[in-house]
Amino acid sequence: MKRIVILGSTGSVGQNTLTVIKELQDRFCVVGLSTYNNVNLLLKQTRLFRPKKIVICNESKFTQRKFLNTQVYSGQDNLKKLVTDVEVDLVVVAISGSAALVPLLEAIDSKKTIALANKEALVMAGNIIMNMAKKKNVTIIPIDSEQSAIWQCLEGNNKKEISKIYLTASGGPLNKVPLGKFSNLSKNKILNHPRWKMGKKISVDSATLMNKGLEIIETKWLFNVNLDCIKVLVHPEAIIHSMVEFRDGSVMAQLSNTDMRFPIQHALTYPQRQRSNFKKLDFFKIKSLHFEKPNFKKFPCLNLAYQAARDGGSMPAVLNASNEKAVDAFLNDRLSFINIPKVIEKILSKHKIIQRPNLDEILEVDKWARTKTQEYINQLN
Amino acid sequence: MKRIVILGSTGSVGQNTLTVIKELQDRFCVVGLSTYNNVNLLLKQTRLFRPKKIVICNESKFTQRKFLNTQVYSGQDNLKKLVTDVEVDLVVVAISGSAALVPLLEAIDSKKTIALANKEALVMAGNIIMNMAKKKNVTIIPIDSEQSAIWQCLEGNNKKEISKIYLTASGGPLNKVPLGKFSNLSKNKILNHPRWKMGKKISVDSATLMNKGLEIIETKWLFNVNLDCIKVLVHPEAIIHSMVEFRDGSVMAQLSNTDMRFPIQHALTYPQRQRSNFKKLDFFKIKSLHFEKPNFKKFPCLNLAYQAARDGGSMPAVLNASNEKAVDAFLNDRLSFINIPKVIEKILSKHKIIQRPNLDEILEVDKWARTKTQEYINQLN
Repeated sequence: MKRIVILGSTGSVGQNTLTVIKELQDRFCVVGLSTYNNVNLLLKQTRLFRPKKIVICNESKFTQRKFLNTQVYSGQDNLKKLVTDVEVDLVVVAISGSAALVPLLEAIDSKKTIALANKEALVMAGNIIMNMAKKKNVTIIPIDSEQSAIWQCLEGNNKKEISKIYLTASGGPLNKVPLGKFSNLSKNKILNHPRWKMGKKISVDSATLMNKGLEIIETKWLFNVNLDCIKVLVHPEAIIHSMVEFRDGSVMAQLSNTDMRFPIQHALTYPQRQRSNFKKLDFFKIKSLHFEKPNFKKFPCLNLAYQAARDGGSMPAVLNASNEKAVDAFLNDRLSFINIPKVIEKILSKHKIIQRPNLDEILEVDKWARTKTQEYINQLN
Repeated sequence: MKRIVILGSTGSVGQNTLTVIKELQDRFCVVGLSTYNNVNLLLKQTRLFRPKKIVICNESKFTQRKFLNTQVYSGQDNLKKLVTDVEVDLVVVAISGSAALVPLLEAIDSKKTIALANKEALVMAGNIIMNMAKKKNVTIIPIDSEQSAIWQCLEGNNKKEISKIYLTASGGPLNKVPLGKFSNLSKNKILNHPRWKMGKKISVDSATLMNKGLEIIETKWLFNVNLDCIKVLVHPEAIIHSMVEFRDGSVMAQLSNTDMRFPIQHALTYPQRQRSNFKKLDFFKIKSLHFEKPNFKKFPCLNLAYQAARDGGSMPAVLNASNEKAVDAFLNDRLSFINIPKVIEKILSKHKIIQRPNLDEILEVDKWARTKTQEYINQLN
């Protein structure tokens, strides 16, 4: 019986994780859940799964100390109570954005196996996270479909024998939309991903391809590979979730339908695989799979990410913070879609890089980049 | 330094094996070679690789006992001298057809690691071979590109978690040729495989799809899976060499260009992968991969193989022997292409199945099927 904590259980990945657990309930036990402010759903989940503790990060939302037999905490800081509990085997980090960083580090420090859906934390502080995981002998199993694919391709292989990683990208909702039409796009069109149902933030990132940009950096850290090995490959069907070429020239690929429950279940049951009722691929119906080069002109965020990754140090943290702020402004109708990369580029150009930042410096840089991004967006309005 | 014997070093796989060894000569040492009757090439190879022993299976071809410092043996029975030598680590079985069976069993009995390119031996006596390998704790690493792909997909995974195997097939040279035109095909067209350069026997098998039929049986034995799990999938580009679906629904695939040196090198260097100079896949140029259902009407050999496999016992040995004889007759202009499956079907229908045949019974059945096939072809002429 694996005892599981889910940080961000009311988000898209969090909800899917609970669906997977429900199907395999003889193997898993939910001992902790958290939300930012979706209290209703959290209480509903609590009624179903009866965790020992829950945390509502937005403090003002709920003031009871007990709900049924569950201990209720409020405030982001109390996530530590969930992830450091000795009676926890695996922590699913499904919080989106930079808020995941501190609880993730606390969970690693507390030697919990990690199932990681969040990519921003690795972008900000990949070096710190991976070093701590190594020191504490903690396994970080990715949930992101691309990283899970790479993970599966590497099973039974030696990381040192990797020669190339093809990070596949569906191309997002704008793959077929010409650049000239980007200024007239409705928010609906942008949020409507052709392959995956996801949260709003990651949906915008998929439209700008910043999502793939962040994944480049995530891949670099998770698998300890050189940036030059990582190639973004547009694959509109999103059936191949990524591929690894080894030094002999053999390529391994992982494929499935676009359903987050595949990588979630893999992360939960690893190193085993359990039967699932998710819709399987039928190659007699698929007929064909396509590949394209990514269009760096249409999607400048991809280049911004490569450049920030090459610069290294604190630069990816700036990229991530500025992107989060810009996407937030876009979602609140305070920034146009085509201005998202322009704003990020501007903030990156203002940043004085710190080469080996510690956690405090990263959090400081994160704050700085948010303030600067906000100021710059205000100027534009 | 792995010490290697190659049975059938003058054939297509044998020659490619020596090319791979030449590139990685600090890792491998050739200690034995054999040919059926291509003495000139064998002596050339002997000059280059200086093996301790060579065998010319066709006894009349060469009568010297020494060549340079190499001991020369003649006669099929002397293959035993190569494969049982204590100073041998790995035996590459690259003899085509049923002639591989006895030396393969001798190599396993002598606890040598096997790199297996021959599929006919497994079709004839899969049960005996795999049981002996298990008993002697011998690893059989496949060289056939499809089986090598499945092997690679299974690395780090549990065989018990397989739910399906997609055995890919390029479709052969006749995939796009309508059935109505089969009676007027030139031998050249049939021997001209669109993706692979191979020996004549396997080229004909690729045109009839009997090659895929034999592989179904090979897969069943090598990976100990149920026949119903094995699906033949036509994939004309022949870039995905096979796929494995696991019970969670995740599919692993292995891809490379169509160059036998990939699976050969993998079998030689396993469990490591070594750098190679073979042409790598470039997904930015590949653009698309296609899949089709196989056409069982156009290619009745596929059904014959499934049926023989389902019948089990001595039936696959009949399938294989009758096919070898029919292909031989076709290559010698004594049987038309469309009559190949008809002949095999006839012989299968005449066979009284032996449920758990021992080696002698299999060899007896093999002889019976050859005689009957020959007689039937003679009647047709």
